Amino acid sequence: MHAADAGFRDFSHVFAERTSRMEASVIREILKVAQRPDVISFAGGLPAPELFPVEEVRRAADAVLTREGAAALQYSTTEGYVPLREWIANRAELVPIDNVQIVTGSQQGLDLLGKVLISRGDVVLVESPTYLGALQSFNPYGARYVQIATDDHGIDVDALAEQLQHVQAKLLYAVPNFQNPTGRTLSLERRRRLVEITRRHGVLVIEDDPYGELRFTGEPLPSLYSLGLELADGDVDANHVVYSGSFSKTLVPGLRDGWVQAAHPIVERLVQAKQGSDLHTPTFNQMIIAELVHAVLPRQVKRVRRVYGERALHMIDRIGARFPSGVHHTTPEGGMFLWLTLPEELDTAQILPRAVERGVAFVPGSPFFALGGGDNTMRLSYSCATPDQIDLGIDALAATIRDAMG
Amino acid sequence: MHAADAGFRDFSHVFAERTSRMEASVIREILKVAQRPDVISFAGGLPAPELFPVEEVRRAADAVLTREGAAALQYSTTEGYVPLREWIANRAELVPIDNVQIVTGSQQGLDLLGKVLISRGDVVLVESPTYLGALQSFNPYGARYVQIATDDHGIDVDALAEQLQHVQAKLLYAVPNFQNPTGRTLSLERRRRLVEITRRHGVLVIEDDPYGELRFTGEPLPSLYSLGLELADGDVDANHVVYSGSFSKTLVPGLRDGWVQAAHPIVERLVQAKQGSDLHTPTFNQMIIAELVHAVLPRQVKRVRRVYGERALHMIDRIGARFPSGVHHTTPEGGMFLWLTLPEELDTAQILPRAVERGVAFVPGSPFFALGGGDNTMRLSYSCATPDQIDLGIDALAATIRDAMG
Repeated sequence: MHAADAGFRDFSHVFAERTSRMEASVIREILKVAQRPDVISFAGGLPAPELFPVEEVRRAADAVLTREGAAALQYSTTEGYVPLREWIANRAELVPIDNVQIVTGSQQGLDLLGKVLISRGDVVLVESPTYLGALQSFNPYGARYVQIATDDHGIDVDALAEQLQHVQAKLLYAVPNFQNPTGRTLSLERRRRLVEITRRHGVLVIEDDPYGELRFTGEPLPSLYSLGLELADGDVDANHVVYSGSFSKTLVPGLRDGWVQAAHPIVERLVQAKQGSDLHTPTFNQMIIAELVHAVLPRQVKRVRRVYGERALHMIDRIGARFPSGVHHTTPEGGMFLWLTLPEELDTAQILPRAVERGVAFVPGSPFFALGGGDNTMRLSYSCATPDQIDLGIDALAATIRDAMG
Repeated sequence: MHAADAGFRDFSHVFAERTSRMEASVIREILKVAQRPDVISFAGGLPAPELFPVEEVRRAADAVLTREGAAALQYSTTEGYVPLREWIANRAELVPIDNVQIVTGSQQGLDLLGKVLISRGDVVLVESPTYLGALQSFNPYGARYVQIATDDHGIDVDALAEQLQHVQAKLLYAVPNFQNPTGRTLSLERRRRLVEITRRHGVLVIEDDPYGELRFTGEPLPSLYSLGLELADGDVDANHVVYSGSFSKTLVPGLRDGWVQAAHPIVERLVQAKQGSDLHTPTFNQMIIAELVHAVLPRQVKRVRRVYGERALHMIDRIGARFPSGVHHTTPEGGMFLWLTLPEELDTAQILPRAVERGVAFVPGSPFFALGGGDNTMRLSYSCATPDQIDLGIDALAATIRDAMG
């Protein structure tokens, strides 16, 4: 054995400096606990698998392989499958397909946006709390976060305006519809002001919208992207809002298909970044999705909306009936999550083991805060829970919280 | 319009510093020319689609969705589908599955390795010429390349030893079997010395092996990974060689499935990096591949070997019969490529348009050199060419080269 061999025992010297900013999701560890069969889990963030259009996917896969098998299984272009990009381009805002980049799940969209936009030390404005997965995508690139306060109507735009007096920010990341983790929706008035303020300050906006289609109550609101387009006088290549879309919550997540819609200079860079990242999103999967968007997707969206709406309402009712006063919950109009705020002195990370003992799991809120905080908050997901599970789980959680409140 | 709006016309100020090191593959542009129906293309690097086991994939997709549709279409673990990891773990060296990470095509493996290993300015040793896609993966992370000379037996290990006297390198990237772009194979003696020298100098090795199974002549050689394992006394977690494998050339590329096999500390970091990059490789695709590895893959490998062997031999024979003297070609024992070296004074980038006029396309060699050079070289792919196309294409190329030689 040579002297240098010692270095290949712990490998600590070989890792890039950026790995010091990367860590495994703490939520993964929590989800492992939550998978115990005797535990009712509101911890996951999974879409309800019993609603998946399995038979329709099977028929689509079969049709694609029968009709154009060799093309479906060959390498293809980095930009993505043209019929799918066309459908996306015509979906809401009628943009040219050159402004649409297919990605391997919207998580890849966030990674590629981080790669092409974030230099080490660049300030990224995030909601407080925000989607943990976005932090995981941006961290390796050296993002420096500034948290913007939120309330039940989403980002506090006055706080945003105030922050922008003091910091030079590169971009703002937001989930305006039924946010993960809070379930909150940004109001129309705030959307307008957010888009206007950020543009004025030269701050790019990443609008992450995996849940937007899953509204089960209230009126749909215009996307930040569409409001950005208005401010850019309809010029898609001057829109400072970048839109991240996904088929994971509306169709199925296991095919890993999403997209980014942005000004062409940004898409051009995304193409370069994606070439080095995975060449292209699986051809077969894109073709399957393209088979499903016309007839199956609209039907599926209706079905998911209805079921999630029932589950959300059931959970909210049960919370109202059983929780002690002093616990605040959000009232989502769509999506998969709601958010609890307990009295200040409580720590949900400490409460979790006691809840699991009583047979219910949740995700403590603290990891969703880029700069810490929120120890007295938690995320609950209702997407995968039946009414009976909701009753049992909320009752167990109510008892646990009551105990903790003393 | 506000003053800052001007910044959202060209967007040049928003891009990360690392984008200055990224560029679209020049080869993509060449491939567009080569797609003209009147041009015989030896430029592509695609596997032959007429050999794809389309019907077997169709049956596998059907079986997976019929048997476990919801699981196939749900989110899954970042590490990958366990039965597929088990098959890979038992494939050659009998490693624990904890040492196997599934990736979205081996290109993603290279990107993730770059992300966790390369700090800006780290020296990466590469073959001269090397695989262009690896440079695209490593560039954004700030790799500084040092080229190692090669000859018809692969990397010149004396030159490697000499370089390591002068430079402190983080890692060496190599394609030891039927290299892209040259088709060359690293000899056994050099493999042993390469692994020994790099270990002694504390240099990690990335062994990229997408073509290894596609040997159509000669004897299989041990992988660098297996030789590294010997040097580490059989301890998989002390192996300084990282193995990158792929199903793209043996089965099909369009499903985007590959893997990385490495010491566990490295795999742990890859898991973290992959969470932020795309969460996980599509579940459905991994399950399809897992259906195919036992019966279909071995049959498919035999078929691809035979056909590529015939095509390679045909191309080599025709080159021997028609090319002017002074042109050197490699003689691949497997894979998809061979490499031409023309007299020093010729420039293949200048020759290309004249070749296309005569109805044949190739890829000029220069882009494959990390630090430039190789103006008198070119890559030819025989994987997708029929004997007739090879005859016509090589004759046209011979005429073009003869003209250029004057």
